[in-house]
Amino acid sequence: MSKQKKSALQEKKGVSISEITNSSSIESIKDKRKAKISTDNLVESILKKDITALSRAITLVESKNKKHKAQANAVLKACLPHANNSIRIGITGVPGVGKSTFIEALGKHLTTIRKRVAVLAIDPSSNITKGSILGDKTRMEDLVKDENAFIRPSASGDSLGGVARKTRETIILCEAAGFDIIIIETVGVGQSETTVHSMVDFFLLLKLAGAGDELQGIKRGIIEMADAIAINKADGDNLKKAKLAKVEFNRALHLYPEKSSQWQPKVTLCSALKNEGIDSIWNSILEYVETTSKNNFFNEKRSEQNKFWLIQTIEDQLKSDFFNTPKIKKELANQIQLLKDNQTTPFAAADYLLNLNN
Amino acid sequence: MSKQKKSALQEKKGVSISEITNSSSIESIKDKRKAKISTDNLVESILKKDITALSRAITLVESKNKKHKAQANAVLKACLPHANNSIRIGITGVPGVGKSTFIEALGKHLTTIRKRVAVLAIDPSSNITKGSILGDKTRMEDLVKDENAFIRPSASGDSLGGVARKTRETIILCEAAGFDIIIIETVGVGQSETTVHSMVDFFLLLKLAGAGDELQGIKRGIIEMADAIAINKADGDNLKKAKLAKVEFNRALHLYPEKSSQWQPKVTLCSALKNEGIDSIWNSILEYVETTSKNNFFNEKRSEQNKFWLIQTIEDQLKSDFFNTPKIKKELANQIQLLKDNQTTPFAAADYLLNLNN
Repeated sequence: MSKQKKSALQEKKGVSISEITNSSSIESIKDKRKAKISTDNLVESILKKDITALSRAITLVESKNKKHKAQANAVLKACLPHANNSIRIGITGVPGVGKSTFIEALGKHLTTIRKRVAVLAIDPSSNITKGSILGDKTRMEDLVKDENAFIRPSASGDSLGGVARKTRETIILCEAAGFDIIIIETVGVGQSETTVHSMVDFFLLLKLAGAGDELQGIKRGIIEMADAIAINKADGDNLKKAKLAKVEFNRALHLYPEKSSQWQPKVTLCSALKNEGIDSIWNSILEYVETTSKNNFFNEKRSEQNKFWLIQTIEDQLKSDFFNTPKIKKELANQIQLLKDNQTTPFAAADYLLNLNN
Repeated sequence: MSKQKKSALQEKKGVSISEITNSSSIESIKDKRKAKISTDNLVESILKKDITALSRAITLVESKNKKHKAQANAVLKACLPHANNSIRIGITGVPGVGKSTFIEALGKHLTTIRKRVAVLAIDPSSNITKGSILGDKTRMEDLVKDENAFIRPSASGDSLGGVARKTRETIILCEAAGFDIIIIETVGVGQSETTVHSMVDFFLLLKLAGAGDELQGIKRGIIEMADAIAINKADGDNLKKAKLAKVEFNRALHLYPEKSSQWQPKVTLCSALKNEGIDSIWNSILEYVETTSKNNFFNEKRSEQNKFWLIQTIEDQLKSDFFNTPKIKKELANQIQLLKDNQTTPFAAADYLLNLNN
């Protein structure tokens, strides 16, 4: 039986036990004791790099059940002092760019040099499409079998914010479980690239030669976020075009002022399929970590990201609390109608709604 | 005595009278009656196109005094049924592009064809620099003297949101005072272009030939917002370069999918200094209004803008209410320290702060 399958089974078993204990309110004291032991055990196992325990904890983080959430928070709190020691890498690129092949090649390169790699995904569309690229694990056949790699498909959630929170918390769990490298893949739907960028240390943009879409990347602000651009499929007949693309993307990168990281983003060529250029991308990442650790940007960025997520979470909650109040929902519709009929201004309507809730 | 000066004097007189009546609480009933009469008078005068009354009303809108605000709201409510009949034009461009000269040329063109023109500005930096371009009215010498033109410098405010609200309300007052065209200038600091774009019907981007910054415009999302690009100073030796720039900007515009307005943004050449090409830009604007009135985009856009400002105002207020609570201010600092010390997650910290306020 593969490790992954075993993990899934044990996870299922765990959930049913907790469901049984939760069902009886008389046993609540016993229940609490059990949950406590279970949390401690879980944390202990995670710190021992137990993948089954890690999977269970992630399932708790992803759960909508209140008790699961409370336990998830306890696990996270206990894991925190053991987190933060990885390099977090975001990877984006349009469908067809060869993301899965690239992540598999990079992942294998890393496990070969004795690193432990976790691969997560941010895919807010996974609710609809029922499966991101990572959902289809068979596309990373070798990496899935590698005992030093852990692959987890995108959490599903009602909102990008929800998915983002779950992924951020999963990063902490993976780090506590001793993963050295966390790769977070995004399919680039909507704001998902910005979201991934705000939770990683290094942001890698995968491109194809001759796609002629460097202006699209500028337009959408992706080039600006990239710490490196890798032109994939730079092999065979494609090599010449890839070299031209390299020049173009280098020019595009020079549109931007020097980053506060003092890092000059690099354009490299690679062929994930032929396993070429992967090592030089990894060396780039190491160079980035060295540069930004020296000037302390690495820690400052993480600190800023934490603050960003703190503020963002509060703001999202404030909005959702306000606009989901039944009274506000009803009156908002009325005020929008009054706006249409030119009988109120947006500001008068806003004041009215805000006063309703006080 | 010039009309502007007279207006300023009467305005001053008005404010002092209201200050006197407000100072005595015993006379509050008398005071209320006076205020009521004054509001009715003010509205009546505004509808009679009285510039002095318009200026006074704008001063009320800009005031931080609670009584002034209440009166401003009453005036706005009474003006609303008479508003909405103008064409609102946003104009942006970097310093040196000749914005003042262009607005003066366009303004004079419009008053010549018997239109009444109001020129407002969004300049969130006006607090710091103590004066936007429009603050220095001497740069629009001819238009200032024109009795069919009304120029009002940017409101000052603590935030772009504050300035934006005041400008939005000023638009209503100007429309009630019978202005056919409202021009809103922005200096393009921070988010001010997006703000202006969200309150106008037509967004015009002024450019210079040979500045080589079309990619900057794409990068900052300005090209995407433009309904027209006018390349200014297209005269003399500059003409050849301007024609080349026209080709480039046309290419840049084709990066974007067709707008829901079904309007294809145009690039034109002009020389505000020599008064060349201004009429064709005006014709473009008229063509835009015709197209978008036919397909109802014109009204739908205004409706969407109203909704946007309603939601935006509520969200801003919710955030400001929350983060300005003394308890939250203090505990936010503590939580940020805990985040730095790796003793909490952004989400646990957010939950803690949100619960504090419940």
